[in-house]
Amino acid sequence: MKFVVIGGDAAGMSAASKARRNMPDLEVVTVEATQDVSYSACGMPYNIAEPAREMNDLIVRKAEVFRSKQGIDLRLEHKAVSIDRNNKKIICKVKGNGSSEITYDKLLIANGARAIRPEIPGINLPGVMVLKSLQDGRAIKQFLGNKTVKKVLIIGMGYIGLEMAEAFHSLGAEVTMVKPGPRLLAFMPEEMAELIKKELSDKGVRCFPGVAVNSVHDDGQGLKVCASSGDIQADLVLVSIGVTPNSELAAEAGLDLGPKKSIAVNRKLQTSDPDIFAAGDCADAFHILTGKRVWIPLALRANRAGWAVADNVTGREVELPGIMGTAVFKVLDLEVARTGLSFEEASSEGYDPVQEMTKSRSRAHSHPGNQTIYVNLVADKNSGKLLGGAMVGKEGVAHRIDSVAVALHAGMSVEEFFQCDMAYAPPFSPVWDPLLTAANQLLKKL
Amino acid sequence: MKFVVIGGDAAGMSAASKARRNMPDLEVVTVEATQDVSYSACGMPYNIAEPAREMNDLIVRKAEVFRSKQGIDLRLEHKAVSIDRNNKKIICKVKGNGSSEITYDKLLIANGARAIRPEIPGINLPGVMVLKSLQDGRAIKQFLGNKTVKKVLIIGMGYIGLEMAEAFHSLGAEVTMVKPGPRLLAFMPEEMAELIKKELSDKGVRCFPGVAVNSVHDDGQGLKVCASSGDIQADLVLVSIGVTPNSELAAEAGLDLGPKKSIAVNRKLQTSDPDIFAAGDCADAFHILTGKRVWIPLALRANRAGWAVADNVTGREVELPGIMGTAVFKVLDLEVARTGLSFEEASSEGYDPVQEMTKSRSRAHSHPGNQTIYVNLVADKNSGKLLGGAMVGKEGVAHRIDSVAVALHAGMSVEEFFQCDMAYAPPFSPVWDPLLTAANQLLKKL
Repeated sequence: MKFVVIGGDAAGMSAASKARRNMPDLEVVTVEATQDVSYSACGMPYNIAEPAREMNDLIVRKAEVFRSKQGIDLRLEHKAVSIDRNNKKIICKVKGNGSSEITYDKLLIANGARAIRPEIPGINLPGVMVLKSLQDGRAIKQFLGNKTVKKVLIIGMGYIGLEMAEAFHSLGAEVTMVKPGPRLLAFMPEEMAELIKKELSDKGVRCFPGVAVNSVHDDGQGLKVCASSGDIQADLVLVSIGVTPNSELAAEAGLDLGPKKSIAVNRKLQTSDPDIFAAGDCADAFHILTGKRVWIPLALRANRAGWAVADNVTGREVELPGIMGTAVFKVLDLEVARTGLSFEEASSEGYDPVQEMTKSRSRAHSHPGNQTIYVNLVADKNSGKLLGGAMVGKEGVAHRIDSVAVALHAGMSVEEFFQCDMAYAPPFSPVWDPLLTAANQLLKKL
Repeated sequence: MKFVVIGGDAAGMSAASKARRNMPDLEVVTVEATQDVSYSACGMPYNIAEPAREMNDLIVRKAEVFRSKQGIDLRLEHKAVSIDRNNKKIICKVKGNGSSEITYDKLLIANGARAIRPEIPGINLPGVMVLKSLQDGRAIKQFLGNKTVKKVLIIGMGYIGLEMAEAFHSLGAEVTMVKPGPRLLAFMPEEMAELIKKELSDKGVRCFPGVAVNSVHDDGQGLKVCASSGDIQADLVLVSIGVTPNSELAAEAGLDLGPKKSIAVNRKLQTSDPDIFAAGDCADAFHILTGKRVWIPLALRANRAGWAVADNVTGREVELPGIMGTAVFKVLDLEVARTGLSFEEASSEGYDPVQEMTKSRSRAHSHPGNQTIYVNLVADKNSGKLLGGAMVGKEGVAHRIDSVAVALHAGMSVEEFFQCDMAYAPPFSPVWDPLLTAANQLLKKL
């Protein structure tokens, strides 16, 4: 049997490797459009912040290792351009060498997502950059190495924009962030978004929601950005307004699409063609709470889906229950995390949500180094069930959110969550963990 | 109605305060044998480590506040010496002032536990100390202030012994630890106990399991401790071999006792006399997994039980499901945590346990500051259910354990736990959280 994988990053290489482990005589061919496989894209902001580090530090396993140690026929700079489902083959454009056809018995589309560039004048000028692929990261790092970058404008205020604001700030640049919408991090409770905005402003990062960018110009001194609030001068502009799934290949092959043009897959990760799977940032998933298709491109679920595809291709039937949208990121001195549904999401999904914002401490009241932790929990008034959580604080946020995620997976009520026997020691939490305090407060609204 | 509480720390004051909040016209009398109420006993090792801090920093709320703001009739230095169940009254010995009788409609026994002193010659010599009450903490701090303490011997290797080893070490003392048994932290997997022993030894704390102490003598130079391994010289000896519940009062009143002579209570916290409740370190609890009575005296469950007693006394019927034995502590640069059942406990409870020890990283592979995290998960081969977890590492342990605790409360299988959508960002974890990696490895044994 021949298993062909389009895309050599998280989902693709997880699938290719596990398929070979599961079935050592399986023929596995992976085609990757770029020169890079198996890298930690999420590590790029931290790598860019350290000029001395090589971008290749982020490569988890080199192409040569996949070939020699794992027996994967890994073909770099092979861009899959079409899928011939009738003849079960893909056609690739090979860099500098025409095209090639590869037949498959089972196919995985794992070609990821790409950064969105808005269609405005000047968006492709040198110095107007995006960050999604390792090549994007190299380009930014090279630009920073070659030019004196004193002023950076970031368009967008999502995870990547905020992480990059920290990176540019740590490199000594003056950072300005703009977005057309009124709120940064619309999926976070507004009070928490304000805390993040305050942290940015306290550290000197200027943050202007409600500002649209109309065009970018090279004025000889650098980049002049014409925005709805006036002109903004920058040496580098990072466009970070989101990503879009690379689903054109699938769509042209007639496969069904899901939310935000992602490739629709069932719980076995099969597309509408049962011999073709999709996984990672190009594919959708089921939200555990709502049971609905969602497109939330994050790294863990890409790796998980890659493994599940490998199992299904090699005859170990696996169905993935879905995702909870759990995420964490760091911005300057804040840890920010969320899981499940926000109050607004819960409302629009037809729940009767209640929420509560509590302010607790990260350590025992008398313990040195104590920091404030904000917890927002959301529950359904009808069922008493927990629906989601968000946290912001200077410490102790990143791993606490996982307790909420586990509770959501288990379908716990707020009361059941409140009864959980959590760990206490003065250096790590108050006797009542901030999550328990939040649950107790929320119970009063149920 | 009159609610009388014996004991003014975590369980007692939680109950007294919440009862008054629930029912503002309730008469609440609390008697406390010492001068101290409502303090963070767990904070004492950290307070002792900082000579400039007052021990009273650990007082959460002062007696005067309970009296004036909460209307609690709080009587200090009133030691309850007997309970007259027929006439529903308690008899107290009042310091320097004879005795007093207090009638009750509902009574809570929350008089805690006390440190065990073995019956060996010299155990009550000056400089041979224990640490349980705030008065114990003051005595140690005073001793350290008055004498030059260069050498400390700690008898026992439990939570408190280890936390105090860190405290004395940070004060510059040479610390030696002994215990008669062969293992430190018998409730932790042996491999993890060895990691802790290595941390102690790396930092210069000498640790000798298998050494029994036979007597202590004042030889003019300080304390000479005669141990099975030979004589050990010390300026201070801390006896930290465990605590025992203060259940004599209950036993003499004919109330049923539970494990380790703790006071037996039902899920409403009632003793065998329905008008008498018990909560905190003096009382037992149900283990969620086994459903059996256990005595695991920890702070959170004391506070929780105090609240539940208040609810039950004031007519809001509450049943507590029980405890999971979740605990965390810090020893030098290590965070150590556990929850649920260890492999040995699971075996003796009649499960068919399997366990797996995995070694992961605290951050993404390429992220600076990465530390090793060890995870031990235990599951039941018959049901596939998760039974317990333990973790050791230099960061990221303390809050991760709560995810395991929540999974145990929910009765999750290892497979269900493995499917949980946990948070990932390079500064906080690898893509696959150490807990997920551990679950995945454990699945291979199921």
